[in-house]
Amino acid sequence: MLDALARAIEAGVGRYPDPEASALRARAAAVYGVPADHILAGNGSDELIALVLRATVDPGARVAFAVPTYSLYETMVTAQGGEAVMPPYPEDFALPPELAAARARVTFLCNPNSPSGTLTPLAKVEALAREVAGILVVDEAYVDFAHGGSALALVGRLDNVLVLRTFSKSFSLAGLRIGLAFGHPELLAGLRTVKDSYNLDRLALAAAEAALDDLDWMKGNVAHIRTTRERLVRELAARDFTVLRSEANFVLARQWEVDLAPLARALAARDILVRHFATPRLRNALRIAVGTDPEIDTLLAALDAVRG
Amino acid sequence: MLDALARAIEAGVGRYPDPEASALRARAAAVYGVPADHILAGNGSDELIALVLRATVDPGARVAFAVPTYSLYETMVTAQGGEAVMPPYPEDFALPPELAAARARVTFLCNPNSPSGTLTPLAKVEALAREVAGILVVDEAYVDFAHGGSALALVGRLDNVLVLRTFSKSFSLAGLRIGLAFGHPELLAGLRTVKDSYNLDRLALAAAEAALDDLDWMKGNVAHIRTTRERLVRELAARDFTVLRSEANFVLARQWEVDLAPLARALAARDILVRHFATPRLRNALRIAVGTDPEIDTLLAALDAVRG
Repeated sequence: MLDALARAIEAGVGRYPDPEASALRARAAAVYGVPADHILAGNGSDELIALVLRATVDPGARVAFAVPTYSLYETMVTAQGGEAVMPPYPEDFALPPELAAARARVTFLCNPNSPSGTLTPLAKVEALAREVAGILVVDEAYVDFAHGGSALALVGRLDNVLVLRTFSKSFSLAGLRIGLAFGHPELLAGLRTVKDSYNLDRLALAAAEAALDDLDWMKGNVAHIRTTRERLVRELAARDFTVLRSEANFVLARQWEVDLAPLARALAARDILVRHFATPRLRNALRIAVGTDPEIDTLLAALDAVRG
Repeated sequence: MLDALARAIEAGVGRYPDPEASALRARAAAVYGVPADHILAGNGSDELIALVLRATVDPGARVAFAVPTYSLYETMVTAQGGEAVMPPYPEDFALPPELAAARARVTFLCNPNSPSGTLTPLAKVEALAREVAGILVVDEAYVDFAHGGSALALVGRLDNVLVLRTFSKSFSLAGLRIGLAFGHPELLAGLRTVKDSYNLDRLALAAAEAALDDLDWMKGNVAHIRTTRERLVRELAARDFTVLRSEANFVLARQWEVDLAPLARALAARDILVRHFATPRLRNALRIAVGTDPEIDTLLAALDAVRG
């Protein structure tokens, strides 16, 4: 990837990038088994989420997603003047029936979900896609860390499914802003009408192409995180945390009836950053990123020290 | 600039970029003499144009600009559901009075203008800013090639003026998508509400910072283009073209009553690309980029050969 960036810099950054990201889409087609005309590249999957909402949401249009989930959905729906319909997930984070019943123009499913790390099985995702009134956006930012379950298999069969991927997590390229959308060409055509022409620059494109050329690196990265994740879950369970089965690169660790804000602050004082959400639903939870093994060692030692 | 990119790559592209582009804005503040809180960084000035329209234009809202000009304004106004009000420029490309009279929510002024290359003097820009009903966006993509005339001087005094700059022209960084908007903090706050958080990636930010640290390179680039421009204008005039005084990195060469499409095609057959616009107003014109001196030699020789 670094070589590819060096070559792209040497080739020059004075000319405009390819607005169609043709080379990247051709590689993604080969890697993911989806035709290139079913793929759109974005400036991170955040831009792709914005494009979906801009292309489809008029003031007052309903956009549905179960909560808690990625907070950007609500932020962007509100910015676009839409109405966010947000049924709560049950304790086990199974899909709530109110989601499909919302008859929304767009339904988001973050899968695996953040902050829970839980994965909705593909059969349930397909059933949801058939049940919703409009577009189902399956945000698979973390799916490389899961054991299967991707909705890419639905893209050729259901024309209302849009699958989003990002290079920020499993490929560790958050600094370069690269995302991919997979969906029916007519759905993508709608997104293109509201997309800036040159949304990805030459170096981001070069890095993304190189990342797809070296999938083994990503798979090694993922395998390592999975192994560390299982260890982290075991160790947290031994410390009286309840941890949902995580299919992501973080875990949600909970303690019933305990507000974990003080614990998060105590860890932060030791330069250990874990995520606490100041909401009634999540006050008893910490979202902990699966770091390196030494980072996990440090976290566990700090937990033991802080909690006596 | 290449060193800066190499350093940024070495420092890592795994972490998210700074959504506020603070380091770039601090440098721009020093270079342009505008406070950092009056500056917003965009993924090319195209994104900044889109942000202005998204933040201000409801269906049916009027957006005005004199034509011919940068074609993206009309494309984006239409995409946003606004009404484009487009009074024609007179032959000398002085501002038409219908522009301010349009009472538009947003007025665009590309200055120097494309494809004419003409510069509206600062006093006229200021008068326009005081006369328009809403926001005046002064798109200064080419202003570094002009002799003065920037509206940056108005930003501190008039809160409805937004000045756009790009790194794609004078800095030759089109492949990296970097633009800057200068305006009142309240105006910029409106744009931020519709901006993707991470709109510029780490490498684009690093390159832009380095470009501002080495203004001498840009100035040398500009000085060279200006010298070549004057030569190109003389040589075209000697070949019976009428050329408007250009303050940009291209010239508009016209021949009264002659459709220049065949000439453009004949040049294209010799791998010389000049821009012909198939509109009644511009059919007698070619927009010719100010290339390198050898490129201009080739163009002039081809013109002489084609036209006998």
